[in-house]
Amino acid sequence: MKRFLDLADLERDEVLALLELARRLESRPEPHALAGKILGLLFLNPSLRTLASFQAGMARLGGSSFVITPGQGTWQLESRLGAVMSGAAAEHVREGIPVLASYCDALGVRAFADGKDLAADLAETAFSAMASLVDKPLINLESAISHPCQALADWKTMDDIGVPRSGRFVLSWAYHPRALPLAVPATAAHMAALRGMEVIVLRPEGFALPPQIMEKAARAAALSGGSVRETGDRDEALSGAHIIYAKEWGATSCYGDAAGDARLRGNLEDWCVRNDWFAHTAADCRLMHCLPVRRNVAVADEVLDSPRSIVQREAYNRLTAQMAVLYRMLKSSI
Amino acid sequence: MKRFLDLADLERDEVLALLELARRLESRPEPHALAGKILGLLFLNPSLRTLASFQAGMARLGGSSFVITPGQGTWQLESRLGAVMSGAAAEHVREGIPVLASYCDALGVRAFADGKDLAADLAETAFSAMASLVDKPLINLESAISHPCQALADWKTMDDIGVPRSGRFVLSWAYHPRALPLAVPATAAHMAALRGMEVIVLRPEGFALPPQIMEKAARAAALSGGSVRETGDRDEALSGAHIIYAKEWGATSCYGDAAGDARLRGNLEDWCVRNDWFAHTAADCRLMHCLPVRRNVAVADEVLDSPRSIVQREAYNRLTAQMAVLYRMLKSSI
Amino acid sequence: MKRFLDLADLERDEVLALLELARRLESRPEPHALAGKILGLLFLNPSLRTLASFQAGMARLGGSSFVITPGQGTWQLESRLGAVMSGAAAEHVREGIPVLASYCDALGVRAFADGKDLAADLAETAFSAMASLVDKPLINLESAISHPCQALADWKTMDDIGVPRSGRFVLSWAYHPRALPLAVPATAAHMAALRGMEVIVLRPEGFALPPQIMEKAARAAALSGGSVRETGDRDEALSGAHIIYAKEWGATSCYGDAAGDARLRGNLEDWCVRNDWFAHTAADCRLMHCLPVRRNVAVADEVLDSPRSIVQREAYNRLTAQMAVLYRMLKSSI
Repeated sequence: MKRFLDLADLERDEVLALLELARRLESRPEPHALAGKILGLLFLNPSLRTLASFQAGMARLGGSSFVITPGQGTWQLESRLGAVMSGAAAEHVREGIPVLASYCDALGVRAFADGKDLAADLAETAFSAMASLVDKPLINLESAISHPCQALADWKTMDDIGVPRSGRFVLSWAYHPRALPLAVPATAAHMAALRGMEVIVLRPEGFALPPQIMEKAARAAALSGGSVRETGDRDEALSGAHIIYAKEWGATSCYGDAAGDARLRGNLEDWCVRNDWFAHTAADCRLMHCLPVRRNVAVADEVLDSPRSIVQREAYNRLTAQMAVLYRMLKSSI
Repeated sequence: MKRFLDLADLERDEVLALLELARRLESRPEPHALAGKILGLLFLNPSLRTLASFQAGMARLGGSSFVITPGQGTWQLESRLGAVMSGAAAEHVREGIPVLASYCDALGVRAFADGKDLAADLAETAFSAMASLVDKPLINLESAISHPCQALADWKTMDDIGVPRSGRFVLSWAYHPRALPLAVPATAAHMAALRGMEVIVLRPEGFALPPQIMEKAARAAALSGGSVRETGDRDEALSGAHIIYAKEWGATSCYGDAAGDARLRGNLEDWCVRNDWFAHTAADCRLMHCLPVRRNVAVADEVLDSPRSIVQREAYNRLTAQMAVLYRMLKSSI
Repeated sequence: MKRFLDLADLERDEVLALLELARRLESRPEPHALAGKILGLLFLNPSLRTLASFQAGMARLGGSSFVITPGQGTWQLESRLGAVMSGAAAEHVREGIPVLASYCDALGVRAFADGKDLAADLAETAFSAMASLVDKPLINLESAISHPCQALADWKTMDDIGVPRSGRFVLSWAYHPRALPLAVPATAAHMAALRGMEVIVLRPEGFALPPQIMEKAARAAALSGGSVRETGDRDEALSGAHIIYAKEWGATSCYGDAAGDARLRGNLEDWCVRNDWFAHTAADCRLMHCLPVRRNVAVADEVLDSPRSIVQREAYNRLTAQMAVLYRMLKSSI
């Protein structure tokens, strides 16, 4: 595996094999598998789980890593093609990224959506331009529209606790003070559909996921016997749910318009997942969230601190899932 | 040893055994002792020695580490229970800390005093709340009122250079432009008392150490044949001293009141340790300081650049002392 | 080799031996050569290549490293002797640097020119003061006037692609919005002269390299059969050139005077290397630059994206060259 940029780039069987590998490495560690291998990590945006779990994962497999964070000990990087670089950015990604790739055996890059032009973000214009500069194994640490490491961790988490393959997966919009990117909701919908689940995207007016995202999830559902639909009716969506996957994202009806987005979300503060959301779900319905989560804003303490919450296991599985990705990419076949 | 949060949590013999282990690892390195082990380091406050020496210590023992610094590549963490997180902090320690712990074999956390509520700081309210979230070995990298790694390094330093076990240890307040936390003075007084020394806390009016800190040191003294008292009389305190341990801290008579603290310290700039402080000490009296130290503000160049200063050895012993802690925590017994 | 502070500190044969070692380690890796060794890296200024390549180089040789970045998780360091430290800096380099050195087997330090006093910068006053505090192997990661790791990488790059030993090396000033330090131009001129090349420093009025720098390069040329001269005539300089080494630097005629510098560079925006600069060079003339480079400000896209550009190979050779330095410094002879 040369690239891990989006779950949709893999055959479903390849995803299942990665999950199997993650479980194998969890039960039978291979502490020298990646001895001598180096992972470079480039963070154009903040991180906690990704930053810690990739370093830990390389170390658990005997390898090592380095971290570059523009703006934190490294200057800002320019990414616009043809830019006359007379501003703050001192280096272009066209130099910076291949240089970093030349120092390591695999490179991970995090670059969030620009949040201004929906078509450009959906097309992964910025990330694809960066990816085209790298001739080493490359890992998407979250791009404009995709977060495949999170997807793999979430899938494994549901397997771990026995969520039915065809269970009802409700991806619910949750309140946040400002617009957040579409990468996680897009990825979670696709992942759950590919797993074979009944995916319901629950969101208020103005926050519908773009057709391209819904269609991609629908294609995955078609492959695996799942389904995907969207609704604004919370009671209907949550009825019988096995998973409430809470996620904050920006208004898609006025993408890139901060004032419009603020108006739309103004009276949506009740989109904070509380115990009463579970009144008519399956009895063992669980709360998932990719983290970080704003407590009592997106999800209430009463849910996060209850046994319903499996957010810790999701976060832990970032490590196990990524170790499988690293192993598949970097383990010498001999 | 599952936790290293405060020297007082250990029996005196356990402390002596850690010091012995530190000396053994210094003379007979074990470069593979912690192969495959991972230390997570969470810094909620700045660091130089702790940051460098823990990474170096793990590497010297064959292990590895990762560093997370909220505000520097990672978002700010909220720590208040029940907070409605609509402000700057994007993640709560209730998620962040157990997640980090799940990626490593031991976690170190630095979280300075809040500096507003003396009772809360003395009770280690914030640190204890964080510690309760961790089910892995946990190391205190400096909390509101305790810095056990510094204590162990300081004790070893005095052993290294032959400071008499029952010698006179003067913990002297030193000038600083603003209030600093009580962790180091509280820890130094307790450590020297537990070592069996005659501990004198020398401080101006308004800067007395709180009774809880003095009583804790007194209990340690009672165990070991030492003593603890407090004075504002510099000549009397320094007479015959074997150690002047300089440290800056905030006014305790108006804790959390910046204006009151500033008034109190306004005319205390002569609390900068100079050569004449050693006029009536023991001939071989040494200057200790945990660093960082503001030169010519807390301690004068003439002292820091003289053979009296053992601050470098104290800092070096952070490495040796912490290697013993890591070894004791993480070495498989087989 | 105890110190790697300036290429001029080494005999020419020692430089050639380092280059040979770099090639050997490139073709026959030694992944355990520095097992158990620790490199400390102190960055008083931003970095990308140096930060990543030193960590990668240590890992490639089986060792490890830690990074300290004052202002990014570590407080600011004071470097003025005798300072009364009542300002922002909480620690003096006189404590910080020897402490860091005590945790590692070799220390690297980056400290750019102050840019105010040319004589002080030429004398490496600040860096020398720091270097005098270190009793471990020490590497210059770029000081006021020297960047020996870049020099070694550049030399190897020219060897790699077969640039004639006596070829014409044009070190050309390039536009930048503000004054940059002299370390790279000074080092590149000296390196190319020591390699035996015909070195021409091409620069506008007011930007002549100081006599000390030119004389040092001339002494190196005398040793190796090369030559060094300076001109403002671009056509004459570029005619027959084998290398255009573009570099931005500050006005030397009014060093430290930002307004004067800005006036001088005001109408020099045509000092951006474009394709037409190669009209009368040797047919296979290459573009070198140490990076970071501001695209379309110092060098145009049309050059950087053409086969003439060897900036990527220069950057990659930071890794290979530094691995030779680390190996020479830290490999036990047994």
